Amino acid sequence: MGRSTLEVIRRHPELFQVAALSTGSSVDALEKLAVEFDPCLVAVADPAALERRPDLVDAGWLCGPDSLLQLAALDHADIVVNAVVGAAGLRPTIAALECGKRCALANKESLVAAGDLVLTAARQGGGELVPVDSEHSAILQCMGGARPGEIRRIILTASGGPFRGTDAEALGKVTAGMALQHPTWNMGAKISIDSATLANKALEVIEAHYLYGLPYDRIEVVVHPTSIVHSFVEFVDGSILAQMGEPTMELPILHALTWPRRATDPSLCTFDPIKWSPLAFEPVDEERFPLFGLGVAAGRAGAAAPAVFNAANEVAVTAFLQGAITFTGMSEVVESTLQGLDGRTANTMDEVVLADYDARRLAADEVSRRQ
Amino acid sequence: MGRSTLEVIRRHPELFQVAALSTGSSVDALEKLAVEFDPCLVAVADPAALERRPDLVDAGWLCGPDSLLQLAALDHADIVVNAVVGAAGLRPTIAALECGKRCALANKESLVAAGDLVLTAARQGGGELVPVDSEHSAILQCMGGARPGEIRRIILTASGGPFRGTDAEALGKVTAGMALQHPTWNMGAKISIDSATLANKALEVIEAHYLYGLPYDRIEVVVHPTSIVHSFVEFVDGSILAQMGEPTMELPILHALTWPRRATDPSLCTFDPIKWSPLAFEPVDEERFPLFGLGVAAGRAGAAAPAVFNAANEVAVTAFLQGAITFTGMSEVVESTLQGLDGRTANTMDEVVLADYDARRLAADEVSRRQ
Repeated sequence: MGRSTLEVIRRHPELFQVAALSTGSSVDALEKLAVEFDPCLVAVADPAALERRPDLVDAGWLCGPDSLLQLAALDHADIVVNAVVGAAGLRPTIAALECGKRCALANKESLVAAGDLVLTAARQGGGELVPVDSEHSAILQCMGGARPGEIRRIILTASGGPFRGTDAEALGKVTAGMALQHPTWNMGAKISIDSATLANKALEVIEAHYLYGLPYDRIEVVVHPTSIVHSFVEFVDGSILAQMGEPTMELPILHALTWPRRATDPSLCTFDPIKWSPLAFEPVDEERFPLFGLGVAAGRAGAAAPAVFNAANEVAVTAFLQGAITFTGMSEVVESTLQGLDGRTANTMDEVVLADYDARRLAADEVSRRQ
Repeated sequence: MGRSTLEVIRRHPELFQVAALSTGSSVDALEKLAVEFDPCLVAVADPAALERRPDLVDAGWLCGPDSLLQLAALDHADIVVNAVVGAAGLRPTIAALECGKRCALANKESLVAAGDLVLTAARQGGGELVPVDSEHSAILQCMGGARPGEIRRIILTASGGPFRGTDAEALGKVTAGMALQHPTWNMGAKISIDSATLANKALEVIEAHYLYGLPYDRIEVVVHPTSIVHSFVEFVDGSILAQMGEPTMELPILHALTWPRRATDPSLCTFDPIKWSPLAFEPVDEERFPLFGLGVAAGRAGAAAPAVFNAANEVAVTAFLQGAITFTGMSEVVESTLQGLDGRTANTMDEVVLADYDARRLAADEVSRRQ
């Protein structure tokens, strides 16, 4: 996501300038990018990653998770693109919004773990959330200038993941290597697994609930294997708008940076409906992909449940990637964790952090019990 | 179209009131509607149709083609829905626009025959054109709040008509009865034939050119047999929006009346992408449907060529409906007429009327020569 953002900025030097850059631990890659884009601030979230490069610390590079907050609040930055992976993205999101910035949000966990707190930060700080996820970007684009009361319903599309046609028994034998081969999008490991389990789509439903202020019974999901239609919005007069295009992260990124205007970008290619014909849709198979239903139910339950779902899912995905649990074991871990932490509140950041912490600990226990 | 408009108004008495009603010659039907909607003015365009009803003339019903102009200019009407069939709709369109009204335009011939004059009337009178055609309504909806420079291209969808899969030889033997059975829309005879020959789609391309100020090389057409996607707009950043829904004229009518807002209408049904899956697209077969290419070429030629195309096509359709010429003969008549009247200008209404008149005469001659 970060690389795609920089690719977009490379093509639009007349519109954008990089004020700051950060990485989790990819110090060498960031060093090259820092030479190219000449940002005022550079930060590395993982302190261990800078240990063997004292020269960069001497050159003023920031270090540690809190350094992301400094970047997010940087005075002369207008837009913060938050593509941190997982719940670690929450505090930078809130910092950017509290400082009145546009937060181009690829970190959906911010809204999932602490949707109400994020919205409060935006309201109080004057910041605005603009989605970078292709589905939520599609919804924003379809909404156009519509008023909130003019939206009847939104329909998120889901690719269905690589195991859409796999039967229940074979699902139990899916390995991490198999799950990492996503049919249409080239993504990181975490989101690839979430896409294969449809947990990702549940996270997106929760994200949409907060982004667009819609109740859950007006947010639906339909499987669309070729990922050409990125989502639908239905209006109160029965009209449907859909946003579509060839799968590329660059378009929703560019849109998040320029919204509500659009920038001319000839390298974002012209769409040919005939090339992609036919466009097929089918229902979500909630039985074979229980993480989807668990996630949406957690969203409906509200309070700390979405944060617990997200944290437990992160632990389960890591365990699956390490071969510690099976593909179907992931939903079992998440379900047990949700049951174990039922009724937690999330009214303050402390409560959210605690729910996240407890969920990770309990989920890890659940993983251990299955080994 | 008129009936669908009244059906929409019936469901939204809180939003709309009928100020005036008109018909070509369906006096009995209009009488019932006048009782129901109690308009201030009622008009019958065809004088012969009122001859046996002096009571209605005594009751103040207007009569003759000019009566439509009185209706279009009616002081306390805000919106004029123009669903007149053919070139006869042009003068009411101009009258409504010159009086600063919103003209909800189902009469695409207004823009085809005299696009520049219609746009001038709107500019000078402060009126606005809002399309009622499902395709053009779709484009307006997709454009949302986009600025003109943000549109890369529009793609109109075409059902392909009832003879999409018919080979060239069989096309020559198509009868009016066969052509009147349109697969998806229930329409009048003229538009059903235009839909079968794709002349209708050429008229829509010309209409889109004037409505949205786009050059012809940025207006494309794709065949979409189920008519669920009503059209596409591609933006300069490569994003595509499509408007879709089950085929109904009521939605674009309601949209034209409420635009840029939307009215809640539960009877305009909820869209199910799975029910309509898959959505298929294919190229237009310009060889088998030459009226499409002839019409677009007339649009590109500009001046009086679109008016000539439209008039010649009206004559050809009537002749085909009467069994005077074959299905394939229609394009021959139109092509000969366009060649015979090449180079005509259309800078004034008189020139447009003359081009229309001459085209009808020449096309009638071409029909006679084929009998």
